This record gives sequence, C-alpha cells and structure tokens, in this order.
Amino acid sequence: MQSAFGWLPRSETRMSEVLDFGARLQETMVRHGRLCVGIDPHPDLLAQWGLPETGGGVRRFGEAVVEAAAGRVGVVKPQVAFFERYGVAGMEALAAVQRSAREAGLLVISDAKRGDIGSTMAAYAHAWLHPESEFAADALTVSPFLGFGSLGPAIEAAEAYGAGLFVLALTSNPEGGEVQLARRGDRSVAGQIAEAAARRNIERREGHNVRDVSHPALGHIGLVVGATTASTAQQAEVDLTRGLPPLLAPGYGAQGASVADLREGFGSAFDHQVLVNSSRAILVQGPQRAGLVDAIDRARDDVS
Amino acid sequence: MQSAFGWLPRSETRMSEVLDFGARLQETMVRHGRLCVGIDPHPDLLAQWGLPETGGGVRRFGEAVVEAAAGRVGVVKPQVAFFERYGVAGMEALAAVQRSAREAGLLVISDAKRGDIGSTMAAYAHAWLHPESEFAADALTVSPFLGFGSLGPAIEAAEAYGAGLFVLALTSNPEGGEVQLARRGDRSVAGQIAEAAARRNIERREGHNVRDVSHPALGHIGLVVGATTASTAQQAEVDLTRGLPPLLAPGYGAQGASVADLREGFGSAFDHQVLVNSSRAILVQGPQRAGLVDAIDRARDDVS
Repeated sequence: MQSAFGWLPRSETRMSEVLDFGARLQETMVRHGRLCVGIDPHPDLLAQWGLPETGGGVRRFGEAVVEAAAGRVGVVKPQVAFFERYGVAGMEALAAVQRSAREAGLLVISDAKRGDIGSTMAAYAHAWLHPESEFAADALTVSPFLGFGSLGPAIEAAEAYGAGLFVLALTSNPEGGEVQLARRGDRSVAGQIAEAAARRNIERREGHNVRDVSHPALGHIGLVVGATTASTAQQAEVDLTRGLPPLLAPGYGAQGASVADLREGFGSAFDHQVLVNSSRAILVQGPQRAGLVDAIDRARDDVS
Repeated sequence: MQSAFGWLPRSETRMSEVLDFGARLQETMVRHGRLCVGIDPHPDLLAQWGLPETGGGVRRFGEAVVEAAAGRVGVVKPQVAFFERYGVAGMEALAAVQRSAREAGLLVISDAKRGDIGSTMAAYAHAWLHPESEFAADALTVSPFLGFGSLGPAIEAAEAYGAGLFVLALTSNPEGGEVQLARRGDRSVAGQIAEAAARRNIERREGHNVRDVSHPALGHIGLVVGATTASTAQQAEVDLTRGLPPLLAPGYGAQGASVADLREGFGSAFDHQVLVNSSRAILVQGPQRAGLVDAIDRARDDVS
C-alpha cells in the first residue's frame, strides 16, 4: 500500500506553515492506507454491544472503536446523527470521542452534512473546524443544496485552520440522482460541484507556491462519492481527478461495493484519492477489541 | 388578520387524535398571524446585547426573545448553527430555549437543515422531533440534497409525532439556483421537491378522512421558499399551492423583501400558507424587552 502513494511528496518540507488538510490526509494515507473506519453507534449496534441507548452508551461505543482503530488506520468518521440523537449528553459523547481519536493520532472527519449560508454557515464551520471548538474535527462533510458558493464561509474556515471539507456530490442512495444528476446548462449538479471544488483546490495550491507542481498534494476540498455510484461519474461528466480532491467513498462492505467495484468505479482516481469508509461491516464484529481489530485489519488490507 | 385564515377549519373537531403539525400551525396562524420570529444569536448581536460568546450568552439571548415573543406571535425559529457554535453548552442552551418557547405556547421550528439517508436520517428525526428528545421541536428544516425520498424516515417520524418538516426548495441566496433550478426530465429540482411534498400532504389528508375535503388544513410537509425568490417559483414551474404546504419564507425585513414583494411573489399562496420569518430586523432592537416587543408587534402587523 505504500507504493500506491509513493509518488506523492512528503510534506515535512512545509512544516513551517499550517499544514493543509490535503497534505495531512495524504501523509496519513501513505502511512496507514485508505481505510476510514466509521463510528456509527446505530441503536441496533448498541443493543448488540450490550450498551444503553444513552450518551454514555454512544461514548463507550465510540471510545472502543477509537481504541481499536488507533495505529491501524489513519482516519475515523463519526456519524454525528447517532450522537445528536441522544441530546446534550450525546453531543458531549461525540466531543469526547473526537478528542480521544485526535489524541490517538487519528484524523477525524465529522460526518454532519451541515449546510447553510453566510454567517450561519460560518457558525457551523466554527463549531466543527475551529481548533478550540469542543467539536473540532480535521474535516467536515457539508451539503451544497444551497449552491457550492454557499459553502464559502466553511471553505475560508477550513483554509484558516488547516482543515478539510468533503462536499456531498454523488451519493450512493438511489434517490440521490434526482438532485445530483439534474442539469443546469451543460452540466450536472454533481459535475458543477466537482468543478467548483477542483478550482478551489487548484487556486489554493497555486497560492501556496508548492514548488514541484507536477507532484501536488491532495486538495483540502474533497467530495463524497458513493462506492456504488462512482461508475456513474463518467456518464454524468463529473471529473473526479481534476484538482486532486480527496474522495470519501461510503458504501464499501456492508452496503455492497467490493474493492473490484471501487477500482472499476473510480478508475484512475482510486489509487491516490480515495478514502474508503467502512462502518457496519467492522462494527458488527464488536464489542470485543479482538473482533474489531481483526475486522479493521482485514478491511484495511482488502482496500489497499 | 383573522379574516385571512377564517375559511380554514378549526381543528377542535379532531382533538381525539394527535393533531397534525399543519392543523396546529394553522390554528396558531389564525390566532397570532403569520410572523415567525427567528432566534439567531449571531456573534455581532451578542456583542450588541452585552452578552458573552458562550452557551450562557446564547441561552440568555434566546430566553429574552422567547419572553418577548410569547403571546404576540405563534412561532419562533431558532437557528441551530448559532447554538452549535458554542459546543455542548450551546446545545444545552438551545434545548433550554426551545423548552421555554414550547412551555410559553409557541411553536418551535428548529432551523437545522439536517439531511441524510436511512437510519441516519431517522436518528436526526428522533433528535429533533421525538417528543421526549431534549431538542424536541414542533418542526425541523431539512435538506433534500440526497433526494426527497431520502427524507422518508423524517417524514415518518413527523407523522408519528404530529410534527412538521420544512424542506429546502427555493432559497433566497443567489447561488441556490445552481442546484434548485437544475432540471431533471421536464422538471426543476425545486419543482420536483414541491410536487413530492404535495403528494405526501394529500395522501396524509386522505388517510385522515378529513370530513370537509373542500376546506383542508395546511399540510405537515412544508417548504422553505425565500421571500425574494418566491417570484421565481412560477418560471421554475414550482406549484406552491398544491397540497397546501406551509411555506416558510426567510428574507423579509433585514434581508430585503417587503410585504408587497411577498404578496406579489407568493401570489395566491400568500394569504393562507406563508409563514414570514424575521430575525435580524427584530433582534437588533434588543436587548431591552420594550424594543423587542415593539419590533415584533410592528413586524407582525406589517405582514398581516
């Protein structure tokens, strides 16, 4: 798995500035591979693990996943809804789990799918990306229903804090196409979002005066592209490689896509840009640490 | 303002079952008019009010707005991002403010713009609509970027709990059209969302065997349609009246639309379906109760 990322520059040369999320993610993927472990304390899983449906329950669930994942993979993705469901105590649990994960050296992508405009978008970005916020993560998933431009305040926050965004683009659920494949002018919504993200990644890279532009790092603005829908990107004229956005791919494992599907669907983007999320297929192997560790190792090796 | 809603049935006849959100909203609008007061503790407003940028600050801000609004209007809309920004304490403040508002007889629309799929969407719906959740509201704003169908679990939760949803459809920000006016087949995204909401409202009404179908109540699935973009609904072939969805209209006052604009933009939908939100124009008149009360009274009378 080292070889897949070997051509990418190590970013030690740029340690004097705040490292961009793309550079940090890339380093992490060089070291640990492309698996992202989802932290989804679904009520059914809590029951299976013998944990209560409370803030305390989701906290113990999340801490166990972090402990099993630390040192084995580079990235975890807490699903915010499964914490928010338990009110204030659930959000307290989320903050604690994210803190533990970052202290353990894991990158955290908060899967919150936030999206709004202006100062409201800025407030969400502060909540999830500001280093001193309780919910601080390395990256946040965001929803562009209000237009890619509405994400501007979140992009600015991400750039200021060295954080990242993953913008919903081509999701794996069957109804997603109603919106994402709708067309405006000569472009699909997903294609337009991918192009806007590409432009921002390219501008940022140019602004940073990366010396060797033939070997750029991953961008800080990523896209969410379902493992099972990546193959539709081409027909929807969505260029997934321009600007080198990291691509967060849910839908591997429990939801149905195999590694062969991923390689075929993502094509040339697979090797360097794709972060493959697995949640349920790993989490059903808990609560014992041995079961989780084994499932994580197998999934990591499978997608490498 | 009574006259505008006088043709609508009073729902006392159906008190034996859980009242639908549409029926409750309608009663509230008959009694109090169509103004919704936004609770947006923007950092600038906190400073102006002499409140700290903390959970305690946003709580005191929210409680003051609730106190001024109670008995004068029927609905408040807390902007969740401005609470989430302050981490766990911010969410605790939001829960307290929403509880105070509901105890004071106000309907609460949590403006959270949540959106996801399957069990994740169900978890958000539980967080915001389940009567025993700490964040329980009467209605929630939701984002359909993953397709209207992805909101299914939230619709089911709303129907089970007598709660409502306001689905983003035609927002007032300039970039919104990139997605919302994109076309799929012969329809815009916004038009397709309005049609799906209409169908659900009609089915629900039929399922309830409302006796006098010529005088139906408002639906439980509403739409968010910006005050300044309502006029584009016609050109985008968005039917805002079919199924009688309540229409939440931000953009009045501080953001620029006058009542004349609203009447012209919404046309025949204005009289019975439109809930006009005002946040900033009212909130800048705080922190004194007299200033808030006066601004609320003026806005309520202006939009009636």
